[in-house]
Amino acid sequence: MEAYVMDKRIDYDGSQISSLWAYSAFGIQSDSIIAFRGACDVFPEHMIDLEDRRQNESIESPDMLHFIVEHFDSTDLKLVYARQRLLATIFASVLTDKGIAVERKGDDLFVDGKKLSVSIASTSAISQKIHFGVNVSHDFYGNLKDAGMTEKQAVNLMDVVSKKYVFEIEDIEADLRKSRQLGVF
Amino acid sequence: MEAYVMDKRIDYDGSQISSLWAYSAFGIQSDSIIAFRGACDVFPEHMIDLEDRRQNESIESPDMLHFIVEHFDSTDLKLVYARQRLLATIFASVLTDKGIAVERKGDDLFVDGKKLSVSIASTSAISQKIHFGVNVSHDFYGNLKDAGMTEKQAVNLMDVVSKKYVFEIEDIEADLRKSRQLGVF
Amino acid sequence: MEAYVMDKRIDYDGSQISSLWAYSAFGIQSDSIIAFRGACDVFPEHMIDLEDRRQNESIESPDMLHFIVEHFDSTDLKLVYARQRLLATIFASVLTDKGIAVERKGDDLFVDGKKLSVSIASTSAISQKIHFGVNVSHDFYGNLKDAGMTEKQAVNLMDVVSKKYVFEIEDIEADLRKSRQLGVF
Amino acid sequence: MEAYVMDKRIDYDGSQISSLWAYSAFGIQSDSIIAFRGACDVFPEHMIDLEDRRQNESIESPDMLHFIVEHFDSTDLKLVYARQRLLATIFASVLTDKGIAVERKGDDLFVDGKKLSVSIASTSAISQKIHFGVNVSHDFYGNLKDAGMTEKQAVNLMDVVSKKYVFEIEDIEADLRKSRQLGVF
Amino acid sequence: MEAYVMDKRIDYDGSQISSLWAYSAFGIQSDSIIAFRGACDVFPEHMIDLEDRRQNESIESPDMLHFIVEHFDSTDLKLVYARQRLLATIFASVLTDKGIAVERKGDDLFVDGKKLSVSIASTSAISQKIHFGVNVSHDFYGNLKDAGMTEKQAVNLMDVVSKKYVFEIEDIEADLRKSRQLGVF
Amino acid sequence: MEAYVMDKRIDYDGSQISSLWAYSAFGIQSDSIIAFRGACDVFPEHMIDLEDRRQNESIESPDMLHFIVEHFDSTDLKLVYARQRLLATIFASVLTDKGIAVERKGDDLFVDGKKLSVSIASTSAISQKIHFGVNVSHDFYGNLKDAGMTEKQAVNLMDVVSKKYVFEIEDIEADLRKSRQLGVF
Repeated sequence: MEAYVMDKRIDYDGSQISSLWAYSAFGIQSDSIIAFRGACDVFPEHMIDLEDRRQNESIESPDMLHFIVEHFDSTDLKLVYARQRLLATIFASVLTDKGIAVERKGDDLFVDGKKLSVSIASTSAISQKIHFGVNVSHDFYGNLKDAGMTEKQAVNLMDVVSKKYVFEIEDIEADLRKSRQLGVF
Repeated sequence: MEAYVMDKRIDYDGSQISSLWAYSAFGIQSDSIIAFRGACDVFPEHMIDLEDRRQNESIESPDMLHFIVEHFDSTDLKLVYARQRLLATIFASVLTDKGIAVERKGDDLFVDGKKLSVSIASTSAISQKIHFGVNVSHDFYGNLKDAGMTEKQAVNLMDVVSKKYVFEIEDIEADLRKSRQLGVF
Repeated sequence: MEAYVMDKRIDYDGSQISSLWAYSAFGIQSDSIIAFRGACDVFPEHMIDLEDRRQNESIESPDMLHFIVEHFDSTDLKLVYARQRLLATIFASVLTDKGIAVERKGDDLFVDGKKLSVSIASTSAISQKIHFGVNVSHDFYGNLKDAGMTEKQAVNLMDVVSKKYVFEIEDIEADLRKSRQLGVF
Repeated sequence: MEAYVMDKRIDYDGSQISSLWAYSAFGIQSDSIIAFRGACDVFPEHMIDLEDRRQNESIESPDMLHFIVEHFDSTDLKLVYARQRLLATIFASVLTDKGIAVERKGDDLFVDGKKLSVSIASTSAISQKIHFGVNVSHDFYGNLKDAGMTEKQAVNLMDVVSKKYVFEIEDIEADLRKSRQLGVF
Repeated sequence: MEAYVMDKRIDYDGSQISSLWAYSAFGIQSDSIIAFRGACDVFPEHMIDLEDRRQNESIESPDMLHFIVEHFDSTDLKLVYARQRLLATIFASVLTDKGIAVERKGDDLFVDGKKLSVSIASTSAISQKIHFGVNVSHDFYGNLKDAGMTEKQAVNLMDVVSKKYVFEIEDIEADLRKSRQLGVF
Repeated sequence: MEAYVMDKRIDYDGSQISSLWAYSAFGIQSDSIIAFRGACDVFPEHMIDLEDRRQNESIESPDMLHFIVEHFDSTDLKLVYARQRLLATIFASVLTDKGIAVERKGDDLFVDGKKLSVSIASTSAISQKIHFGVNVSHDFYGNLKDAGMTEKQAVNLMDVVSKKYVFEIEDIEADLRKSRQLGVF
């Protein structure tokens, strides 16, 4: 599994959640987590979460860190959602380690009771994908600056969290290769 | 999914990791998380982790909280390991909320650099299972008492963590029922 | 799993077979069976069964009972077809109990040698779906009125059959949680 | 898929539920349904259903029709249980066609409120298996003779039901090869 | 599994890689391998391999043998790619038997260092498909005529290779129905 | 995926086909192909192929090259058998390149009409495994020496074939990460 942090800023418009974006954009032919910084403005045709569509809720932010995960080892919805939760907990634990009080409810992170993140996970017939975005700054939602982070610290999270996610997945892959099957009562 | 906390103390000897233990012991016919308190002394024939076997490492503790999870919705090894990590992060976050500094590496929790927990996950042909055990007290390993918890607080974790795990799984199940499939580049 | 019978009449136009219709229409976030009454007029772009398309066969009825089933626990084609057959047998057995002679061939029901029902099953990347429709009245196809049912009795089938299907699925889920894995010769 | 009716009587002792019995006994290398007549006396070590074990309930009958199904196309528990229910409904519908009132609850058939059948389904790592047994005669349980069948009629059910089950599975396999995938809302 | 060799020539334009083409064109309701002869000119909207798209590489040939495989028993990407490689090795071994030196790299065959074949494999939500095309003649790519085959010999490969592929799949299906599950250390 | 060629000779007694042998023997925690040289003498309790058991056929050779493959990415029987065939074709093509005429039927290789190899594939609840053994020398079966290979050339095949198998699997994994999902007719 490959972690890649983009130097260039790009905006998240929802197209990056499509399967094979990592290959199309960077020629990456492994499972991957790509991190980049940019605004968030999801076009309605790219909205995966029907709740957002039903509520006609815009998903907008001027400045976010984005993580795009793609796995080709399975197209199991239960698995991609478990992995999405793991990514959220990894992000949360990095903030906790820096002394920032963060609360997780499902796939959402909160600081001071304000929503810090947006996330979606789903599958196509060929891969699993996750988008996880965190506000660097925002006028009324939770964001890393208000939580006390400098811009440099915030930007650095792209590298730290991507690597931790890759470590988690590879650690799991190693663990499951040393465990016997279960007996049955 | 059902959460059940045993009133009675029993020891974890490794037999509880077998598939259908929840049904055999309690007649439970749903996915479940069962919590109980007791010593930990795993018989070699019940050791699932071959690393422990190879190192002839005994898994012993006089007083632990035990969580036994069983899922019948899939026998995918990747999924049960992702769920095991989620359970570990849930336990860790509850300690963090109580002001206890806890570190997670894979499926292990540490306090003050000392190993607080043991865990294993695996599958049979019919179900996934997880064992997660945490020392209440211990002479040289990390434990909840040394971390500052009263016995009552420690014991209460069985209820809190079991319910949070059930919430997590049910929250995932609800989320995956409102997300469209992905497009492809 | 949730059973829901609509009070309002709506027509089945084939759009209801799409994944996530239950969520879009009713906000339902569980596996579900939705029953409603209305005409049946499937637009060609919603035809799932290519045999109908090849034969340019219209699927029309002025008055039907419709059952729309959605499962998110698997996207296995074999499983959704087995469940479709189960739904057909459940419907048939309810008629049999009321003294109506009904014959099942695959997913089709017949009374007096006339086709009583239409059905389709398939999957998307995220869910399994079944449509099962039964004529309440019809000029030349089999229908519940000609079979001797009053309108009230016919309408009542929506509730009875939906509940029996939910019972069947939940009974299966309970049964598979008390059976040991098999030995091998 | 192959249907095979044994000429010879043999007793069902629970060993026939093991994977690869059809190959071991008859050299059959396809999915199969094998029917035979004989007593039923399940040795405790072959009991798959833990409920029977817990209740220390003997599974005994002097004279039964037995159907042993094996599928190698999947090891999904949900699928083998759906197929078990289909087999039960097929058997029931054959009785209904002969004018015998039969009731199905899950995998059990009843005549005159008396239990007519026993059944179990499960998987190993390599195949799915179903056992379905029906009393030809019995002192207090439901049985085909008391339901009005001659011995010849009862014995003939082995052939009829086996063929109908094979037809059902092959009909499903054909149907799923002409249905488009679903759209998504 | 059915092998079918078309008498009529048709061109491969990429539409034949869609799921259910065999049913739409020939009413085939089994897993199948269809062989035909014709030019190759893939419309961009039918390009499955994004590498071809990225490189804006046309896939053109005036005269090819085409094999279109469809399996409905699984939608596992790993399996369809393993099957694609098997098809390539089967084709290669037939040439080898005729004294033609052929080299395989992944899914590509080479003669005299020149690319002889094109291939793609993928899945939809309902089936696996493979396209494997081999130049009968070509101005600069490898082709069967330059390799020393008469037109009749080349055309005959459609029948030979299709049958060998079907044999391979059926041989596998038989083998997996006589092997016990594995022990575990 | 890791390829490992043992320096030491060991005999294949059938125990090496068990899941987790690579971890137990070498601590390998990745998918792997292990090659070694030694006699072949399979104890009956380790016989996976019931055909051998039924025919009471001993599987013996004084001197073989052995390849033991283990994959943890799936427990699909169809996939491990397709991979087994790929391994056989890879071995065959290496011999072909060295000018040795070799014929493959299913998982068996033949030289001069004599059986050169033995092979088995199966799964446990946690992994897929393949054993592929080739006679270096033998009194009446086909073997590499009679086919004209020096001992050094024969021994070298362990390295060559293992690496080619790893390349094949990794090439597949890369290919499936650049292919769009299919359309449907």
